[in-house]
This record gives sequence, C-alpha cells and structure tokens, in this order.
Amino acid sequence: LSKAPSYSFHLNDDLILALYPKTALAKDANVTAGPPSPAELSIGHIVKSKQEVDAIMKQAEKAGAKITNPAQDRFWGGCSGYFQDLNGHLWEIAWNPQWEVKE
Amino acid sequence: LSKAPSYSFHLNDDLILALYPKTALAKDANVTAGPPSPAELSIGHIVKSKQEVDAIMKQAEKAGAKITNPAQDRFWGGCSGYFQDLNGHLWEIAWNPQWEVKE
Repeated sequence: LSKAPSYSFHLNDDLILALYPKTALAKDANVTAGPPSPAELSIGHIVKSKQEVDAIMKQAEKAGAKITNPAQDRFWGGCSGYFQDLNGHLWEIAWNPQWEVKE
Repeated sequence: LSKAPSYSFHLNDDLILALYPKTALAKDANVTAGPPSPAELSIGHIVKSKQEVDAIMKQAEKAGAKITNPAQDRFWGGCSGYFQDLNGHLWEIAWNPQWEVKE
C-alpha cells in the first residue's frame, strides 16, 4: 500500500483485485522490480464463435498488437489465438463450443 | 489453454481466475517465459489487528519466509509487513482500522 494510483475490482464480498504499479509494489515490499515478464499472466477473453476469434485477432493486429500465436483450431476442441498488446501484456482470445457465453 | 495442470477460481458469474504454470503459458502463447519476477504481484492478507500482523509475520519467518519489509506502522494509519514465501511469491499482511474484517 502506498500513495501510488491504483484500481480496485471488488470480485466478491471477500476478494479484491487491485491493479498497482509494479515499481510501487517493489518499493513497498523492498524487493527488486525486475524486468517485464510477458508470460507472467495472460488475460483470457472468451468469445461466442470462431469467427469472433478471427475478427478480434485481426482488430488487435491492426491496432499494433504483436500476434504471437495465430488463431487456429486447438486440440481441446475450440479455437484460440494469442497476442501481446502495446504494453506487452498477453491476451488469449478463445472460443470453446463447450463454454456458454452469456449475452 | 493446454494439458498442463491448472486451478480455477470462479470469482463471479463472468470472471474466472486460473492458476497455470508460467512455462505452459509461455509455450501456449509462443513467448519467452523470462526469469521469475517477485514484484509482479503480491497476495494481500487483511487481518483484524496489529497483533495479528506481528503473529503472522513471525509464523512466516519461522516457516522459512524471507521478511522483505518488517511489520510496522504505516502512513495510511494501519500496520503491515511483507515477506516472500519459499517460492518467492510476495505477501503483504495488513491491518487497517478503517477496514472491517468479517468473521
């Protein structure tokens, strides 16, 4: 905890996800921040069709994202692709016929 | 997504937190895993008193954790300390008089 800007998401009554600058966390905790680590986490975005996976991957690429693993059928029965956004964060866009996506 | 072991926490109807090996994510996404990064994220554990902060920090140290920032009063009105567990993950144990902790 410090004075650095942060964003909090109240996930449920007992759980908060807080976004907070890595450099501020390093200072608070008294550890070395270290270099960026693209594979530390990914954001998974589940969509409703294979076509939507393709469309979002193209949109991301057009916006400057780096496609690291193009959209394709996967052994688990669905389709997915990975890209890194302009800040290096990893996204997976995925469709799985066994997952229901609410409107 | 791959065959690697993973753990999923359904945080609410639309949000899942999935724990998944970094090496498996790197392989899936086709990026370099990179070195461990201790300041990438921390787990915050909110407790009910200053004494509880002290007790947990001592318990962690006894169990082999590395205290990076000892328990002490903080400018924001509470008390907290940081340690790294045996896997290098960062924990913050904190008490804030303005936060209510449910039983």
